[in-house]
Formats: sequence, structure tokens, C-alpha cells
Amino acid sequence: MGAMDSQFMQRAPHEMLAEYLGDDLAQVNALIRARMASEHAPRIPEVTAHLIEAGGKRIRPMLVLAASRICGYQGQHHHHLAATVEFIHTATLLHDDVVDESRKRRGRATANLLWDNKSSVLVGDYLFARAFQLMVECGSLRVLDILANASATIAEGEVLQLTTAQNIATTEDQYLRVIRGKTAALFSAATEAGAVLAGADEAQIRALFDYGDALGISFQIVDDYLDYGGAGDGIGKDIGDDFREGKLTLPVIRAIASAGGEERAFWRRVLEKGQQQAGDLDHALGLLARHGTLSSTRAEALDWGARAKAALEPLPEHPLRQMLADLADYVVARVY
Amino acid sequence: MGAMDSQFMQRAPHEMLAEYLGDDLAQVNALIRARMASEHAPRIPEVTAHLIEAGGKRIRPMLVLAASRICGYQGQHHHHLAATVEFIHTATLLHDDVVDESRKRRGRATANLLWDNKSSVLVGDYLFARAFQLMVECGSLRVLDILANASATIAEGEVLQLTTAQNIATTEDQYLRVIRGKTAALFSAATEAGAVLAGADEAQIRALFDYGDALGISFQIVDDYLDYGGAGDGIGKDIGDDFREGKLTLPVIRAIASAGGEERAFWRRVLEKGQQQAGDLDHALGLLARHGTLSSTRAEALDWGARAKAALEPLPEHPLRQMLADLADYVVARVY
Repeated sequence: MGAMDSQFMQRAPHEMLAEYLGDDLAQVNALIRARMASEHAPRIPEVTAHLIEAGGKRIRPMLVLAASRICGYQGQHHHHLAATVEFIHTATLLHDDVVDESRKRRGRATANLLWDNKSSVLVGDYLFARAFQLMVECGSLRVLDILANASATIAEGEVLQLTTAQNIATTEDQYLRVIRGKTAALFSAATEAGAVLAGADEAQIRALFDYGDALGISFQIVDDYLDYGGAGDGIGKDIGDDFREGKLTLPVIRAIASAGGEERAFWRRVLEKGQQQAGDLDHALGLLARHGTLSSTRAEALDWGARAKAALEPLPEHPLRQMLADLADYVVARVY
Repeated sequence: MGAMDSQFMQRAPHEMLAEYLGDDLAQVNALIRARMASEHAPRIPEVTAHLIEAGGKRIRPMLVLAASRICGYQGQHHHHLAATVEFIHTATLLHDDVVDESRKRRGRATANLLWDNKSSVLVGDYLFARAFQLMVECGSLRVLDILANASATIAEGEVLQLTTAQNIATTEDQYLRVIRGKTAALFSAATEAGAVLAGADEAQIRALFDYGDALGISFQIVDDYLDYGGAGDGIGKDIGDDFREGKLTLPVIRAIASAGGEERAFWRRVLEKGQQQAGDLDHALGLLARHGTLSSTRAEALDWGARAKAALEPLPEHPLRQMLADLADYVVARVY
């Protein structure tokens, strides 16, 4: 808790980024509002406004803006690129909520609950198409290539997640692929494409890709760690959601890898067959403790956070570079 | 029926196209098979193979190939572009079946029924991402712009269809927008992008866009006409599907525009409130006959078919040009 406390004494890095990038961000928000509209299908802005105005932190657009600014970009297309990644992110949220049958997102009822699954599927498709138009306007085939590959990684990761859930044979390699799709692919596409747009050299482009990739992976591992309680500080989501849904996340994958026959039978019953009863979550937490997998998951998150910071090394000195380093610290500070 | 009979005496134009374009089409099919695979998520090829191998006519890929060949294209990227439009088409089918809660497609159980809605949503997203990668490989920003705009038109049309269903205030303008999204936008993107890829001049590009647009519109109007029986030849789908689902198609929109108070009350009850009883479809058919809207819909389809043929005029003489003209005739021959 010590590190968390000291983090809260000062402003969070994403707030510092939002202030530093204030003018850019205002233009990105104006572009988002202009492009999510549809003259002919009023259902579209209803659904998108519900989600886009709901107070996300705009982390992904800020990653684009920061990357392009650090690399000295002087044009205006970073706004289009920033709006692009926010639209892709919002489209995947709409589709995720249909897939997960979610009822809440960012503290509000989800679109699939307020309207219907049909609207969520089709408005998600619309946002993806609008993202596609915005990125074409950037005029760079290499940027388009990065975003096309990220889109494929995201979609493949989502399908893989569908087939690894309730499957105790899931490997760490598959887990990494799932969380790259879920979080890291769009982070790294945002930072890499921002650098490409700015005409950065290959070492800087690679550095910013690696930063986004490691940041996204550490972010997701922290999330999965906190789902089993973490420091028990009540900041995270409800404990045990992943357990109840039979999701194979890193603490469990590692515990299963060390499990004997009786333990395997337990995991098979609760995760694969979904036959859960009172006391099972406590028993699972006991197994994670026995095999030390919560602390090894925590160490893994910290390691990826350190990799994110180290990746920034080839970049020029810049206030935004320091904020990105602080952001990497902030993301993993939740595991202290 | 006379025109239909004579059409059936010879081979259908899409069969002639498939033969003429045989080598190209074989390469497109190989590319489709290679790109729909996913090493890591085996669910993906299962779902896509179910749909892509199900024996669609490959009309859209053939439109790309024909357009680029007529304009003298010598490269290999028309295969990528042809695979792109088939992937986009397949992705929209997967999402449509979720939205419509369909149970059958091309005579086989739909993916949402065989697997689940989740798989249909996410595999659709995957195919769209793969389409995006394929079109980036074509290396033309203008081709990407055409496909981005088509994607937005398709998605907007789908959402609009959702909100015009069960709404008797739907206008002909809205109807046209819906069917452009549903069918014509991808047809016209296929032919326009094929011409652009070939480096055709602006008049030829415009001609091929207009051809695809008019062909798609006539195709969809014919479909909507046949849903109310058409010539009653049993070739089309079951009569009255659109009526039962409360869809506002051209014959009904025109009948409502001419309706008096009592007729409006009937349409409101059966389409908006969905309160249908025995004899309602017959009564509806009587109203269409009274206002002559089946014959005016038929005339509209023929008019768009004629526009498609006329659009081909600026193009050079070519066996494929004749086949495209025959295809336009063939599409509307169903209304004779």
C-alpha cells in the first residue's frame, strides 16, 4: 500500500498526460464527436455517445499523441490516428459486451442491455468502419498495415479466449496471446503508429512498439492478479469473477502446472465443469498460495512494467517520455 | 416467364464469368483458404470454412476480377482485392445471422446455431481484420478509401434497417439507403476498386462504380419484389417472409404512400404492432394490387437493370463487358 499512497499524493500520470496534451486531446474529442455521428441512422450516435462520453481515460489516444509528439511530429494527422484507436477500442467493447453478456461497463448499463445485442454488433461494425476511414485519411500505408495487423491480433485473441475458457490445458503461451489481443495489441499499435506517422527512425519505432506492448501486458497481468485479491485493498473489481467464469488466467495456469492429481481434479471440477460450491474460491486461493503463483504473477507484472520503462531508452529526452515511464510505474503500482 | 426460359436455355452469365475467369478464381480461392486459417484459434477456420465453402457464387470476387481485367490490369493484386470483398461479405453474413437470429443460410444451419452467437460475432471481426490486411497488401490508398467508405455505408445501412423495420413512416429514400448498404455498396466497391487497381481513367472508374451500384440495387429490388410473390414461379424464397417480419420494402412503402386512413390502420397493425392473423397477407397483396405497387416495383427493378447496362458504355469492347451486361439482364429476368 505504501507505493499506492505515495502515488495518490501526487497526480496520476494519465492526468499529467491529459493536461500536457490538453489542446491535442480537445481536438481528438471534437473529431470523435464529429465522426461518431450518422445523419441517417440516429441509433448510432445514441449508442456511441453512451459509451464514448462515459468517461474513459482516453489512454489509447494519449499513447498515440505522446508517441508522435516525442518523435517530433508537426502535422495534424495524429488527431485522426488517436480517434482511430479510440473507435477501434470502443467497437471491441461493444462486441465484448455481447460476447460476455455483460450488464455493466464503466459503472453504467451496457448498450446491449439498454438497446439490444443487434445494435451493439452493428454499431460496433459502424465504429470499426469509421476508424478505417479515419486511418485512411492519415495517408500512410505503413500505419494502415500496423492497424490491420493489430485488428487481426485482437480478433484472433478474442476467439482464442473463447476456446481457452474452461480449458485447464491452457498454456502460458496461449495466455500471453490472449492478453496481447485483449490489451497489448492496441497499445503497441498506438505507440508504433504514432512514431511511424512522425517519421521516426526504426530504433525509435521499435522502442515505442515495445513500450506499448509491455505496458499492455503488465496492465492485463495486474488485472488478472487483482481478480484473486491482490493486496485486498478493495480498489480492484470483485474478487473471484474470473474464477466463477472459469477463465484461465496466469495465477491459475501456473497453479495447475504444479498441481498433483487431486488438485487437478479440483480445477477440472470448478473451472471446466463449472461445478462450484461454497468454499471453492477459498480453496483455490489456498492452492495459489501453496504454489506461490500469486507472488510469481506479481513478479511477472513487475517485470513487464520494468521492460516497458527500459524500452523508452532510445527515445529523446522529453517531458512526455517521463510521463510514459511514470505511467508504466503507475500501472504496476496496483500490485504493491 | 418467357425471358426466364430463354435464359435457362443457355448457361447463366455468372457461370460464363466463372469459366472465363477460371484461373484467376482458382488463385482467389487458394488465397481465401490460406488467409481464413488461424494457427492459434482453430475455431476460426471451422466457422469460416462452414460458410466460405458452402458454395456461394463468388459474384463479388468475380466483379473485382472482371472490372480489373476489362481495364487491362496486368498485376496480381486483383486476387487480394477479390478475396477482400469475399471476406467482407462473409463477415457481414456472420453478423447478419446474429442480428436476424437466422437458422439457415445457403441451405445449411447458420454458424450462430452450430456454434454460438459469440463465435459468429468474433469470427466476423476476424474476417474483417483479415480483409483489411489483404487490401493493405494491394498498396493503393485510393482502393483502401473506397473500401473504407463502402464499409461505413454497409454498417450504416444495417443500423438503419434495424430502425426502419416496423416503422411505416419509412421513406423510399431510406429504403434506397438500406439496400445500398445491404447489397449495392459492396458491388460498386468491387467494380470501382477493380478499375482503380488497373489504373483506369476516371470515366471508366465512374462507369464501373455506376454499374456495380445499379446492379446491386436492381438485385435487391427484385428480391423484395419476389418476396410478395412476383410471377409466383416458386423460384424465390417463401412468399411473405418480409411481411411477417414487418420489413418495409418498396412494394409496401409505395402502397402506404397511397393509403387512406383505413389502409394505414391495417399496415400499422400488421407491420408496426406485428398483430397478424389469417388472411392478412392476402389482404396486403390485394392492397399492393389496388395501388399497382408490385408492377411499379417491377418497373423500378427493370429501370435499375437498364441503368447498369447503360453504365458499361464508356468501357472498351471485351468479352467480360458483355458478360457483365448479360448479368444485369439475368438479375432482373427473375421479375418476368
